[in-house]
Amino acid sequence: MNIITIGREFGSGGRELGKKIAEMLGYKYYDKEIISTIAERHNLNENYVENGLISIPVPTINLTFGHSFVSPLYVDAPKTELLLEQRRVIEEIASKGENFVIIGRNSDVILQKYAPFNVFVTADLEDKIQRCLSRAKDNGENFTTKEIKRKIIKIDKARKRARFLITEKDWGHKNSYHIIVNSTGWNLDLLASSICSIANNYFKDLKPKNNERNDD
Amino acid sequence: MNIITIGREFGSGGRELGKKIAEMLGYKYYDKEIISTIAERHNLNENYVENGLISIPVPTINLTFGHSFVSPLYVDAPKTELLLEQRRVIEEIASKGENFVIIGRNSDVILQKYAPFNVFVTADLEDKIQRCLSRAKDNGENFTTKEIKRKIIKIDKARKRARFLITEKDWGHKNSYHIIVNSTGWNLDLLASSICSIANNYFKDLKPKNNERNDD
Repeated sequence: MNIITIGREFGSGGRELGKKIAEMLGYKYYDKEIISTIAERHNLNENYVENGLISIPVPTINLTFGHSFVSPLYVDAPKTELLLEQRRVIEEIASKGENFVIIGRNSDVILQKYAPFNVFVTADLEDKIQRCLSRAKDNGENFTTKEIKRKIIKIDKARKRARFLITEKDWGHKNSYHIIVNSTGWNLDLLASSICSIANNYFKDLKPKNNERNDD
Repeated sequence: MNIITIGREFGSGGRELGKKIAEMLGYKYYDKEIISTIAERHNLNENYVENGLISIPVPTINLTFGHSFVSPLYVDAPKTELLLEQRRVIEEIASKGENFVIIGRNSDVILQKYAPFNVFVTADLEDKIQRCLSRAKDNGENFTTKEIKRKIIKIDKARKRARFLITEKDWGHKNSYHIIVNSTGWNLDLLASSICSIANNYFKDLKPKNNERNDD
C-alpha cells in the first residue's frame, strides 16, 4: 500500500495538487470525506466538526500522539474527542490497504508506520492571496485583500500550533517532510506529474529503508 | 541559460547530488572551483579563502546584498573583500551564458535575475553523521561521532547566520527555495534524476513567469 500525505499552506493550491496526484496515479483521495464521516457517525454538523478540528485550544502541558496520543484530561474534551475520532477514521482508511492521497490532518505522523511519502506545499504570499480571492469570488463571497491576508496568516498559525502541540513536529519545516515544493507560478498539472514521478521513485526504491527512519 | 543552485546541510550529500544533476543534464558544475579562482587571482591559500568565507563575523548593523551588497565599512575588511570577490566570480560564471549547477554560496540570491531553479538538500541527522564519518575515514582522518555531530551543527549554524546577514533570507526555510528534499535513504542517482525532471519542467514551463516572483 502506497500513501502520499500532503501538508500545505492555506491558499497554496495543495488540495488541488493532491487531487491531481491521486487522479494521475489512480489512488483514492481523502480530504473533506473525513469530516463528513465524523459528522455522520456522531450526528454533528460538518461545519462544527471542521471548525472544532482547526481551533485546538492551548493545553496546560505539552501533548503528543506520536505514540500515546493526547490525553483528554488536558484539553477541551469535545475537541479532543474530535481529534481522536479523526485519527480513528484515518487509521480505518489505511486499514483498507488501498493506495491513497490524504490532505493535511497530521496524517504523515498518524500513518508513519506505513512509511508514507510526505509532501508539503508552500507558495508566495501574493499568490496565495490571489488564489483565495478568486476562490471566494467563485463562492459568491466578498473579501478585501487585507481580510484574505489576515485569514491566511490566522489559519496557518493555527495549523502550526496544532501540529506542534499534537505531534511535537514543526509544521512546514524541512525536517518533517520528504519534499517541500513552492507551487507559485507552476501549471499544477505539470507540478503534480513531477511529484508523481518522485513519489514513484520513493515507493520503488526508498520505502523499506525509510521504515527505519530516525525522525529527530 | 538554465541555472540550478543547490543549498545544503553539511553532510546531506547535496554536493554529490549537484554533481550528478550536472552530469545528467550536461551542465557545467561549480563548487570548489570558485575558491580556487579567488585563491589564484589574489595569490592566497585555498584553505584561507575557504575558511574566510565560512566564518563571517557579526556586523554591527544588518547588511544585505540583494541589491546593494555588504558595505566594507561594517564588517571585517579582508573577509568582506573575499565575499565581494566570490560574488564577482559567480557573476562572471553566469555571464558566460552556459547552463550550470552551482553549490551553496547564496548563489540563488546572487543570481536571482537569471531565475535559477533553487534546490535545498536536507537529511536526517543520523544519516549526515554517517556520511561525514565515512568521508573522514576515506581521507584518513579520525573523528568520533560526537565530534562530527558538533562539526555539523557548527558549520550549519555559520551558514544560517551568514545567509541571513548577507541576504536577509532564511537558510533552509521553505520560503527561500523552489524545492527542498530530504536525501535520507535515497539512492542519489534516483533522487538526482527526479530533480532533473522537475527542474526541466521548471525551465520549460515556469521560468519566464518566475522572473516576476515576489520573494517576500
